[in-house]
Amino acid sequence: MEVGFLGTGRMGKVMAANLLKAGHRVRAWDKSPEPLHELKRAGADIATTAADAFRGDAVISMLPNDQALREVFIEGDLLKHGHASTVSVNMGTVSLDCVDALVAAHDARNIAYVAATVFGRPDVAAAAKLSIMAAGDSAAIDRVQPLFDAMGQKTYRVGSEPRHANIAKIAGNLMVACAIEATAEAAALLRKYRMSAPDVLDVIITSLFNVPVYQGYGRAIGHRQYMPPGFDLVLGMKDVGLALKAGEQANVPLPFASVLRDAFIDAIANGDADKDWSAIARVAARKAGLED
Amino acid sequence: MEVGFLGTGRMGKVMAANLLKAGHRVRAWDKSPEPLHELKRAGADIATTAADAFRGDAVISMLPNDQALREVFIEGDLLKHGHASTVSVNMGTVSLDCVDALVAAHDARNIAYVAATVFGRPDVAAAAKLSIMAAGDSAAIDRVQPLFDAMGQKTYRVGSEPRHANIAKIAGNLMVACAIEATAEAAALLRKYRMSAPDVLDVIITSLFNVPVYQGYGRAIGHRQYMPPGFDLVLGMKDVGLALKAGEQANVPLPFASVLRDAFIDAIANGDADKDWSAIARVAARKAGLED
Amino acid sequence: MEVGFLGTGRMGKVMAANLLKAGHRVRAWDKSPEPLHELKRAGADIATTAADAFRGDAVISMLPNDQALREVFIEGDLLKHGHASTVSVNMGTVSLDCVDALVAAHDARNIAYVAATVFGRPDVAAAAKLSIMAAGDSAAIDRVQPLFDAMGQKTYRVGSEPRHANIAKIAGNLMVACAIEATAEAAALLRKYRMSAPDVLDVIITSLFNVPVYQGYGRAIGHRQYMPPGFDLVLGMKDVGLALKAGEQANVPLPFASVLRDAFIDAIANGDADKDWSAIARVAARKAGLED
Amino acid sequence: MEVGFLGTGRMGKVMAANLLKAGHRVRAWDKSPEPLHELKRAGADIATTAADAFRGDAVISMLPNDQALREVFIEGDLLKHGHASTVSVNMGTVSLDCVDALVAAHDARNIAYVAATVFGRPDVAAAAKLSIMAAGDSAAIDRVQPLFDAMGQKTYRVGSEPRHANIAKIAGNLMVACAIEATAEAAALLRKYRMSAPDVLDVIITSLFNVPVYQGYGRAIGHRQYMPPGFDLVLGMKDVGLALKAGEQANVPLPFASVLRDAFIDAIANGDADKDWSAIARVAARKAGLED
Repeated sequence: MEVGFLGTGRMGKVMAANLLKAGHRVRAWDKSPEPLHELKRAGADIATTAADAFRGDAVISMLPNDQALREVFIEGDLLKHGHASTVSVNMGTVSLDCVDALVAAHDARNIAYVAATVFGRPDVAAAAKLSIMAAGDSAAIDRVQPLFDAMGQKTYRVGSEPRHANIAKIAGNLMVACAIEATAEAAALLRKYRMSAPDVLDVIITSLFNVPVYQGYGRAIGHRQYMPPGFDLVLGMKDVGLALKAGEQANVPLPFASVLRDAFIDAIANGDADKDWSAIARVAARKAGLED
Repeated sequence: MEVGFLGTGRMGKVMAANLLKAGHRVRAWDKSPEPLHELKRAGADIATTAADAFRGDAVISMLPNDQALREVFIEGDLLKHGHASTVSVNMGTVSLDCVDALVAAHDARNIAYVAATVFGRPDVAAAAKLSIMAAGDSAAIDRVQPLFDAMGQKTYRVGSEPRHANIAKIAGNLMVACAIEATAEAAALLRKYRMSAPDVLDVIITSLFNVPVYQGYGRAIGHRQYMPPGFDLVLGMKDVGLALKAGEQANVPLPFASVLRDAFIDAIANGDADKDWSAIARVAARKAGLED
Repeated sequence: MEVGFLGTGRMGKVMAANLLKAGHRVRAWDKSPEPLHELKRAGADIATTAADAFRGDAVISMLPNDQALREVFIEGDLLKHGHASTVSVNMGTVSLDCVDALVAAHDARNIAYVAATVFGRPDVAAAAKLSIMAAGDSAAIDRVQPLFDAMGQKTYRVGSEPRHANIAKIAGNLMVACAIEATAEAAALLRKYRMSAPDVLDVIITSLFNVPVYQGYGRAIGHRQYMPPGFDLVLGMKDVGLALKAGEQANVPLPFASVLRDAFIDAIANGDADKDWSAIARVAARKAGLED
Repeated sequence: MEVGFLGTGRMGKVMAANLLKAGHRVRAWDKSPEPLHELKRAGADIATTAADAFRGDAVISMLPNDQALREVFIEGDLLKHGHASTVSVNMGTVSLDCVDALVAAHDARNIAYVAATVFGRPDVAAAAKLSIMAAGDSAAIDRVQPLFDAMGQKTYRVGSEPRHANIAKIAGNLMVACAIEATAEAAALLRKYRMSAPDVLDVIITSLFNVPVYQGYGRAIGHRQYMPPGFDLVLGMKDVGLALKAGEQANVPLPFASVLRDAFIDAIANGDADKDWSAIARVAARKAGLED
């Protein structure tokens, strides 16, 4: 297939590379030129503007946040260049308000819009093992399924409205944040009883919670290593904020998310904004009178 | 080895059977005769009193709660029958106050005391795949290591004081309870956006949280099936209470545990005491205005 | 003094009447004509547009919310009609973002802007006993002090930036919301011990908390009377949201506000949006298994 | 009336003095002799043992805690000296478990037991202005009403079971603790916006919350003065614990009490155990990144 690709950051770059490997033609664009050179060597065409990449059978967006999406799609009026035969697939994490704006913009131009969020960090993406949650018009998803097959290990269809893909992502992210706080509280408890947090957490993450999410954060918290950040605390705060906002709009109290919000603010107020989001464990430790 | 075994309930029964399979001699006792018949057929000797089972190289206790332990060990003055050559191994979940009382009682009689808590439900115990966390005197643990090898897949030494094994168990249980509440909040959010909670949770528990703890509770919560209980809500409340008590004694605030406490009380106040502890998801649903 | 008055709802109407009583000339405007007739009989001039009222020594705004303020001041470009000799005094409760927009708009036209929030319901306003918290340029406040003297019993200067008046109001409102939740939890406890909540709360609000805020809400909660609303639940949710937003912008965790947020959402999700905000006591009761 | 008085600490001493002023005969006992000398000068008889004071028309206990009550009443078997004509009145704050033990002990000896908790600090007690909440047998309360009249400004009858007086006290204390935390969060917010917390809190406690509870704590928090303690943080933690325990026994979730529990533990873990309980405001400040 002919695919446009907008946004070739840490995730987008390896996803686009997997499309190339699977034999698709890719026309890539990003604000920043560096990752584009890499993709060019791997066989991609390089577009000089977002509009220049918005063509072909499908266009995949993997832009970093609401603001970037709004700049490119809404303010840049990108869709006026689009064709009805192109499926626009947004794979980034985005607020529900932004989803609604994007859906309206696509509807106005009669261009099919699919939302497809993913679980998996860059290494998982590079291995083409993402879990993809797609939502929107079923026929449109069918058309881009070969692209999902090239980038992920499985595609789940989670709803008929595009925003459903974002809700699913928000729910999963909230669960990850909860796993971090739970580990942080356990670690503070262990330390105050003068036990080895790394050792006991190691038991827990090789038995009950024998899964990469807990293993990564369990080790970081056990050894109190929060730099360099895999996913920084301010982004984590944003994700918890998306969950609280989604909860508020649908009238869903989320008490764990509220505790997380306070923990993230506490961490930021105390100077840890640039650390990994697992550094909220420093908040749990400080509350227990531990030094860090 | 010659092993006494006190408490042959759902867990103890299969653990004792694994000792027999590994070639150890087992002398078992329980208040209730039924499981003893089974063990007899498997080759165990049956003791008529706890005192009659308190002999040999080691005695393993797998009694259900503080009260049962106190009755047998303290009020029944069990240890007056003990020999200095016997290692007493308590594998049940117990409060720190009860641990302290047991340690004092063993010290007074000069009998070695090892605490060894486990992660794993009866099916895991039956497969001899328990994760065992042992704490106490290192030489005493060495002596009973062959027994742990027969019952578990791995033994971790988590501290030099017996109570350390209980703290580790309390920490792990708290993390499990947190996983349940996190799943419950995610499910309420999904449902209020008219998405299929079973389907989306299925994505999450086969990708991010691909581990039996999340799979079991994720399915229960997705399908709203809380009967029969695997571990009932009142026991769950007790476990959260142990964590809060341990936190209070060592001055460790545990905000997630506090939220859990309120959720368990809410569930009990609203008639779900006899359901599985994952039924705290009904609390999250009710708060969101969902019917159950 | 010559005073323009924008917004003559339940509060504005009686405040404007007090200005007239004190001998000031008032030129009033509101979207809705009814309260204007009343003020006319009391001696006010009636303006047909907001612009027509924006003149004289000072203009007081008592508009209901951000949206109304933005419509009149920003979208209506009201200030282009203003003179540098007029002090613009905003006495409504408003978000910090809206304050910032209003300050910028006034600065652009070189018109002095004073923020002056108040504590007190319509009956307190009618008695000219409002507590007024003024913030902004000191000389500008001096010029309008005679107006504050006519409307309130005391004016406090709470800061040099206009937003300080709003922060003070947000802080006070948060404390009121906390008083409601505290009373609600006490009432649930009393009821579950089969005690008379009205009687015991009556003891508390005539001894420890012998002050109108607690008396009003204590009686409402004791007798479970939440209609008609004095201040409705959705407005209460908005106020808690302003506190959380202000806390987030300045990195201040507010755990009580987070609990309140969940209680308000729970109340709204369960059908109480149109009741008085003290109806969050129904949430506390429901969590305790009480019928309402 | 002839009155025995057990426990003449800061509160008991002035209460007993008011009984003397009202013309009652008082026979006082305390573990510590100092306050007894004072009372002797004021006209009281001094008992050398608790048993020696347990006689007359009524005996009032104002002992400091559960342990002191159990020592004197249960372990000391005080009631074997009692007569059926004596009404035993416990005015101290006590756990529900301890109330139950005292009720059983009195029932066994057929001695009437009245619980009568109070709101008011020593200065209020000295002015005979306590608010008294009495519970138990109505005829027994009638008999001691003249004593209540001498010590308090009003007696409220809050229930037919003695424990009701304790629940009412627990509920009131919880509301006071909530007022402190609410003030603490408001203060942290004000400070982070670089406003004067003392000044703005002063507005709030002279308008909305114009009542001694808020005035005392509002000033302490505004000026960050937590020494000497009026009521120390560890006692505050105990009171919150009584509320949580009472809530747990009757299945009442108390989310504000849970937040308070974590704040008190945080304060104690960080070295403020000996300060006034309003020092939980230091926790709120620290979470916001403020120095104290």
